Amino acid sequence: MKLYKKEKYNDLGLDTKSPSSGYRALNKDGSFNVRKENVSFFEGMNIFHSLVSMSWLQFFLVLALGYFMINLVFASLYLFIGTEHLTGIYGTTKIDQFIEAFFFSAQTITTLGYGQIAPLNLAANIVAATESLLGLLLFALATGLMYGRFSKPYATIKYSSLAVIAPYNDINGFMFRVVNPKNNQLLEVEVNVNLSLKRENSDLRDFYSLELERSKVVFFPTMWTVVHPISDKSPIYGFKSEELIAKDAEFIVVIKAFDESFSQSVYSRSSYKANEVRWGAKFTYLAKRDETGISIDVGRIDDTFEIDLNQSGS
Amino acid sequence: MKLYKKEKYNDLGLDTKSPSSGYRALNKDGSFNVRKENVSFFEGMNIFHSLVSMSWLQFFLVLALGYFMINLVFASLYLFIGTEHLTGIYGTTKIDQFIEAFFFSAQTITTLGYGQIAPLNLAANIVAATESLLGLLLFALATGLMYGRFSKPYATIKYSSLAVIAPYNDINGFMFRVVNPKNNQLLEVEVNVNLSLKRENSDLRDFYSLELERSKVVFFPTMWTVVHPISDKSPIYGFKSEELIAKDAEFIVVIKAFDESFSQSVYSRSSYKANEVRWGAKFTYLAKRDETGISIDVGRIDDTFEIDLNQSGS
Amino acid sequence: MKLYKKEKYNDLGLDTKSPSSGYRALNKDGSFNVRKENVSFFEGMNIFHSLVSMSWLQFFLVLALGYFMINLVFASLYLFIGTEHLTGIYGTTKIDQFIEAFFFSAQTITTLGYGQIAPLNLAANIVAATESLLGLLLFALATGLMYGRFSKPYATIKYSSLAVIAPYNDINGFMFRVVNPKNNQLLEVEVNVNLSLKRENSDLRDFYSLELERSKVVFFPTMWTVVHPISDKSPIYGFKSEELIAKDAEFIVVIKAFDESFSQSVYSRSSYKANEVRWGAKFTYLAKRDETGISIDVGRIDDTFEIDLNQSGS
Amino acid sequence: MKLYKKEKYNDLGLDTKSPSSGYRALNKDGSFNVRKENVSFFEGMNIFHSLVSMSWLQFFLVLALGYFMINLVFASLYLFIGTEHLTGIYGTTKIDQFIEAFFFSAQTITTLGYGQIAPLNLAANIVAATESLLGLLLFALATGLMYGRFSKPYATIKYSSLAVIAPYNDINGFMFRVVNPKNNQLLEVEVNVNLSLKRENSDLRDFYSLELERSKVVFFPTMWTVVHPISDKSPIYGFKSEELIAKDAEFIVVIKAFDESFSQSVYSRSSYKANEVRWGAKFTYLAKRDETGISIDVGRIDDTFEIDLNQSGS
Repeated sequence: MKLYKKEKYNDLGLDTKSPSSGYRALNKDGSFNVRKENVSFFEGMNIFHSLVSMSWLQFFLVLALGYFMINLVFASLYLFIGTEHLTGIYGTTKIDQFIEAFFFSAQTITTLGYGQIAPLNLAANIVAATESLLGLLLFALATGLMYGRFSKPYATIKYSSLAVIAPYNDINGFMFRVVNPKNNQLLEVEVNVNLSLKRENSDLRDFYSLELERSKVVFFPTMWTVVHPISDKSPIYGFKSEELIAKDAEFIVVIKAFDESFSQSVYSRSSYKANEVRWGAKFTYLAKRDETGISIDVGRIDDTFEIDLNQSGS
Repeated sequence: MKLYKKEKYNDLGLDTKSPSSGYRALNKDGSFNVRKENVSFFEGMNIFHSLVSMSWLQFFLVLALGYFMINLVFASLYLFIGTEHLTGIYGTTKIDQFIEAFFFSAQTITTLGYGQIAPLNLAANIVAATESLLGLLLFALATGLMYGRFSKPYATIKYSSLAVIAPYNDINGFMFRVVNPKNNQLLEVEVNVNLSLKRENSDLRDFYSLELERSKVVFFPTMWTVVHPISDKSPIYGFKSEELIAKDAEFIVVIKAFDESFSQSVYSRSSYKANEVRWGAKFTYLAKRDETGISIDVGRIDDTFEIDLNQSGS
Repeated sequence: MKLYKKEKYNDLGLDTKSPSSGYRALNKDGSFNVRKENVSFFEGMNIFHSLVSMSWLQFFLVLALGYFMINLVFASLYLFIGTEHLTGIYGTTKIDQFIEAFFFSAQTITTLGYGQIAPLNLAANIVAATESLLGLLLFALATGLMYGRFSKPYATIKYSSLAVIAPYNDINGFMFRVVNPKNNQLLEVEVNVNLSLKRENSDLRDFYSLELERSKVVFFPTMWTVVHPISDKSPIYGFKSEELIAKDAEFIVVIKAFDESFSQSVYSRSSYKANEVRWGAKFTYLAKRDETGISIDVGRIDDTFEIDLNQSGS
Repeated sequence: MKLYKKEKYNDLGLDTKSPSSGYRALNKDGSFNVRKENVSFFEGMNIFHSLVSMSWLQFFLVLALGYFMINLVFASLYLFIGTEHLTGIYGTTKIDQFIEAFFFSAQTITTLGYGQIAPLNLAANIVAATESLLGLLLFALATGLMYGRFSKPYATIKYSSLAVIAPYNDINGFMFRVVNPKNNQLLEVEVNVNLSLKRENSDLRDFYSLELERSKVVFFPTMWTVVHPISDKSPIYGFKSEELIAKDAEFIVVIKAFDESFSQSVYSRSSYKANEVRWGAKFTYLAKRDETGISIDVGRIDDTFEIDLNQSGS
């Protein structure tokens, strides 16, 4: 096996002991295959993170449920005080009074305050004044979360679903394609590709930082084919398709960029396992030029054609 | 042709294949001449980016339209339930009732709640309670967007409309001027100038990072004339005006700075094509000194006077 | 004593004069044992910092008290104007009128506005219009603070309560463990460990930057055992347990990371005093592997077992 | 004159031509003595910057005035439509009706909506619905600005009002003191000191980056005396007090730090002119130690005592 210097910077912080062969350290969507156990509920929860990361459907369900529950609680309080201390309650049964109190609560917590129902005595006034304060604070939080969800910066980078081994100059190269499908600009885009290989007859893994044709670009308006030239310094120099699979190879990609819309740094992660690498295929060139500029067909990011590999080395 | 090392850092990420000669990679306002096709609507949309980037007029039209539409929907709901279940509806025709329901909806979604119209039965109460919740959440989003639009950091750098080739010490230099016309301070201002030249008898382009007299300043309170000295190491050493045009030259400028008002990094981009370079002109010195300090006449940023170029090299 | 270069970067900014021996420069929670005196109240207060850093209980008490006080003030104003200038005030005693005015104020400042009480004359209208404006601005601030508290990024790193001296390859190492118990990801995690030792027969302290096995990782999904190898270049090479205590050693840890949820840099600090270092103990390996990935038992972060130290040097 | 390398990084971006001798490039509060002229009103305005930077008094006056003006406008609209189309207007004179319409407008724009006055016909309803929408958007903006003002990060560093020349080891040193009086922590504090000297018989200025005893500290919990050792490499080596004044010296200080409360980088600037440097004075040591830690008397930051300077060189 060839020597290949592990660069300090690229210490990935992943475990070097290898679970079963099919194991994937990094999922396609960039999440990690790690569970943390015996973390107490509150210690492990990052409520903000949870509420900002859940789907919009889940988020609205949480809000609707919270709104319903809190009105139930306050309706019960008004009923306990006695609905005779509210003007405009006409229900005669407990159920009807509860329903009217429930909607009075809804009108109070949203500070809607039609006034067709209004508090009369001290106790009802205290509850209503407290409820409107609480309402303003809770909706303050909901306001923040709505905005936090909406304005959360995230690198929306789209990866080609497969990587390829294709000819590159005199040798071959490991290649995949990325594009930013959104209409916001990413700047100072930096890509790092690391390779994890299982050692033979051992459950340890080695991590290699792969040298790239170019690892940083200032602008990222078009599609970018990231290339690792398989020179004689590459840890996969001379490999065949079967060796990648035998060594349970995983190419781990980290992309860092500056999102101009949010003026913040964003990260994107993904990985390619050995069986997601197609040998002897090349990505189709997709940029078309006309008098007004360049157009890129993003929908064809996965388009490849077959091609013979160079025989020197790999 | 002279050798000139392309620096890794300044890989621009622009396509090296050249479209028609008049093509401009970067527009004056910093946008790219690139279209992305076959991006599905939702994939390509960054709703936040769109709503924050559109003009104020467009933004208010979107809001007003949304407000109108949502009240139409809820007015229809109240009409469907029956306006007899709302107090204070006096219209006798369907149209009049619809109009009254429309404004009741407006009073509900803004949580205005005059109360001259109010819900009476269960269905009307449910719709009103839902509408007020929805209203608070939608206005929460509008609040965030208003603020996001208003507080968006952006480098408001103003460029001289032309660049010049003027004498610089014993040689000549490529120069343009920048100023921050706003009253907020930019710090740690860093400028990069890259040159794109078309290869002869080829549709490929070469990119060169241009060495600058100074490429970073700590403060930026006045006007800054950015200078690329055309030494014998410059890729345009010995060029005449016609050669710049024949090679379809484009000078691509990227400025990075720290905006003190927003405590965030901001970027500004622009470019000069060969026909936007005036040969044998020099920028007029604009700073005036008096006892209280320095004053800069920003309105005269484009002022130049004619001057003879040095003959050594260029 | 061996020479050990102090690196410029790691100048901690802590005082080199040493107070009493048991003194701790940095508390376990990362705060400093420094008080600032003769700072005027307003100069020393960072109101935003205070309101965002206090506990939720304190924060809600501040809000509730403020709400109560401001309603007291406005109730007094309405009483001063005369409650006959408000509709719907039925109280006959001053106390009853004050209570009604108090709740009218609460309905006004929250913009609830039931309308069962409403202002009639000019003075009452002016006060009510002013109060509602003030209410919107104050709740605007409360909204911001609620969100600021909720979305405040902070490195939630959990440290092992003790550090250990354990065998490391042929020599020994100073080790402690860290984990991120939260469900948000920390990236580009960088750790710095500095050692503060009291000079013999002097009240001065020396600071040393400790070399680490690895000082930066790209990902941090699992537990990380930070190791300072006690080679012959280490300032504690050849030390015994008693010497660490005699020199009043303090290991000062600073961790910097990028929090992906907030897209911001976060810092975490802690320290280990000589008596928090266990000699001849090693951390139990906690990662378990199954077909779906790795699981970490965070609750056992402090688990160690006894082990013989290597005799070379330390 | 000795040679002293100007470091590229420290190019200050200040003009090298010198106005009158008493000129100060940087004011004590960090602002620049530069005016920009012929900037059109909108081009020069950064409305957000202005509204966030003005004093609280100015800010509240702007808000109150805006609130008053907008209610005037809407009151006129209601009057134009006719107050007979509003319920609950009892005024018989135009003035009385205008006042009632004014407060109805205030109740509408704040979404207070008591309901004792309410719109009746189509026109009044349209105006009221528009006003409540406008109100929500304007208060959204005010909310954002309140929070933006409140949470604006800024380096609250306090400088000693004078700098001193005091003995430092075998030589002398230029020294000043800084402290963070606030209760939030600044981390990774980096200080740069640059010296501007007027050339003899010329109106040009030279800028020198001064080497510091320590230029970066990780923590900043106490007071920090920044020291420039006046070695034979210093541009003021061998200077006497009169030479500093004759050369119109200005020491320009830039401090960069990471504010932990805001998770953002902050900058602080100040300067010392030649007449703000006291020769032969040393800062009093202010840290007091007791069993609980260190206490710093911030109020005595300017305390100095007289001391004889070393005679080697300066």
